[in-house]
Amino acid sequence: MSILVVGTVAFDAIETPYGKKEKIVGGAATYICLSSAFFKNKINLVSVVGDDFPQDAIDMLKSKSVDTKGLQIKEGEKTFFWSGKYHNNMNSRDTLETQLNVLQNFNPIVPEGFKNSDFLMLGNLMPSVQKKVLDQMKKRPKLIVLDTMNFWMDHYMEDLKEALKSVDVLTINDEEARQLSEEYSLVNAAKKILEMGPKYLIIKKGEHGAMLFDDKQVFFSPALPLEEVLDPTGAGDSFAGGFIGYIAKTGDLSFENMKRAVIYGSVLASFSVEKFGTEQLEKITKEQINCRLKNIVNLMSCDIDVN
Amino acid sequence: MSILVVGTVAFDAIETPYGKKEKIVGGAATYICLSSAFFKNKINLVSVVGDDFPQDAIDMLKSKSVDTKGLQIKEGEKTFFWSGKYHNNMNSRDTLETQLNVLQNFNPIVPEGFKNSDFLMLGNLMPSVQKKVLDQMKKRPKLIVLDTMNFWMDHYMEDLKEALKSVDVLTINDEEARQLSEEYSLVNAAKKILEMGPKYLIIKKGEHGAMLFDDKQVFFSPALPLEEVLDPTGAGDSFAGGFIGYIAKTGDLSFENMKRAVIYGSVLASFSVEKFGTEQLEKITKEQINCRLKNIVNLMSCDIDVN
Repeated sequence: MSILVVGTVAFDAIETPYGKKEKIVGGAATYICLSSAFFKNKINLVSVVGDDFPQDAIDMLKSKSVDTKGLQIKEGEKTFFWSGKYHNNMNSRDTLETQLNVLQNFNPIVPEGFKNSDFLMLGNLMPSVQKKVLDQMKKRPKLIVLDTMNFWMDHYMEDLKEALKSVDVLTINDEEARQLSEEYSLVNAAKKILEMGPKYLIIKKGEHGAMLFDDKQVFFSPALPLEEVLDPTGAGDSFAGGFIGYIAKTGDLSFENMKRAVIYGSVLASFSVEKFGTEQLEKITKEQINCRLKNIVNLMSCDIDVN
Repeated sequence: MSILVVGTVAFDAIETPYGKKEKIVGGAATYICLSSAFFKNKINLVSVVGDDFPQDAIDMLKSKSVDTKGLQIKEGEKTFFWSGKYHNNMNSRDTLETQLNVLQNFNPIVPEGFKNSDFLMLGNLMPSVQKKVLDQMKKRPKLIVLDTMNFWMDHYMEDLKEALKSVDVLTINDEEARQLSEEYSLVNAAKKILEMGPKYLIIKKGEHGAMLFDDKQVFFSPALPLEEVLDPTGAGDSFAGGFIGYIAKTGDLSFENMKRAVIYGSVLASFSVEKFGTEQLEKITKEQINCRLKNIVNLMSCDIDVN
């Protein structure tokens, strides 16, 4: 099935305790596209770059069945640039520099052929831009997933809350769930957030796994314990891409199937963080995915009598 | 079966964002005894208090099948006292005051009748004291579990490493696993720690669950998402007590059974943190335990095809 993906396509400069990359291709939409493309979906990308963005990165996306006709290329302008440095524990980072560039006045235009996409993935971006994309759809997608972050909560909370009214699934991390709900307990946070619009909430906890809530149930997927994490950038986006990618492939919107999608999301994220940038996601194989899927299922399997 | 438990029996003063308790009964051994007693084991306690320790706290332990003849009561001395304040996130705390008192010169004496205990739980305490208890056993217990913390790593690392050579299971938290192994990745940390003596490593991650490692396998148990956490003090001890309690009840030392024991540990810990001190552990019922057991199993159950 088809997925409309909106989000940033960007340059990142990344420093971690394990190395440094000056200017590599990144952005939420890039990670989401590569991750969801694994499931052989048709990916419709809506984003914006400057004329400094390399054609071979666009070609790479095209080679993964990403339709880039909704990718605006702004002549004489520069691509969005983010630079960050991860601390020793890799769970926290400082933003060193943000150059909005083409994002400053980004007006997302959904091409006609994209307006009937089956699924909609609103990647991390200004909430009003996410909403503009949503409003251009001709029919309501089967599932609308929105990813966001604390930055938008700090500065555009009202816009975000407006966008949330129209989405099915929200993906955020634990601190963001606390910020959005003003509740410390994640159980209570989930309750409040599910009253804001989304029917499902996914709380991403990085190396500590991910939780899926609806109004009655909770599911927990551990993250795969990894020997080496080189670069956490894009982990949440890869997770979201794996999630929506699996849902779109199966077309099954039950809670049971969302659990599986969360596990696939965790698997995709586990590959993403093992190398800098999107290197690992670009060449991932079905065998590799299946192997990790088994590992994660083994990790949580326990034969216990509950009566 | 019988479990010899050594650890502190203490007074705690605790401040959390949800309240304050001036002087309540606590200590690693107290939590471990109450938690493991749920499984109807015979608990043999070795510890020390001053003559200021209330008789009804001792009677309460006795009422839970805890044999207190190894609990030394030092005339004219004061019970170990710890005071701590939890931060808003409840995951970190400051120690406000530590009065070692009777612990200063604690020489653990294992009563004759305890020296054949089937299982040995070395609760958090000075490593040399843990070792002294171990050395007094007449026959090797079926399983020796040692719990410790960063404080002993900071000041008594060599003693701790010496004690580790003789134990089967080590339980520590993620930061402690990193400190002990000098490895950031928990996978690599586990590998190194399993070379130090223990055949099994349990990494307790508080609200993020717990991991069980041997040299070939890993198992992950989530923590139950709770609406309210009032006081995390003793969570790790309650976990350890639930773990050894279940193992002792079943007598099964397989990795599969240890997984179950980890889940029981998580369940016991979930009760412990819902009230200040040991209040909740003292009155816990089989029905309550079974209900949470089901919840935790549901939390991690997913029907997914891995082929």
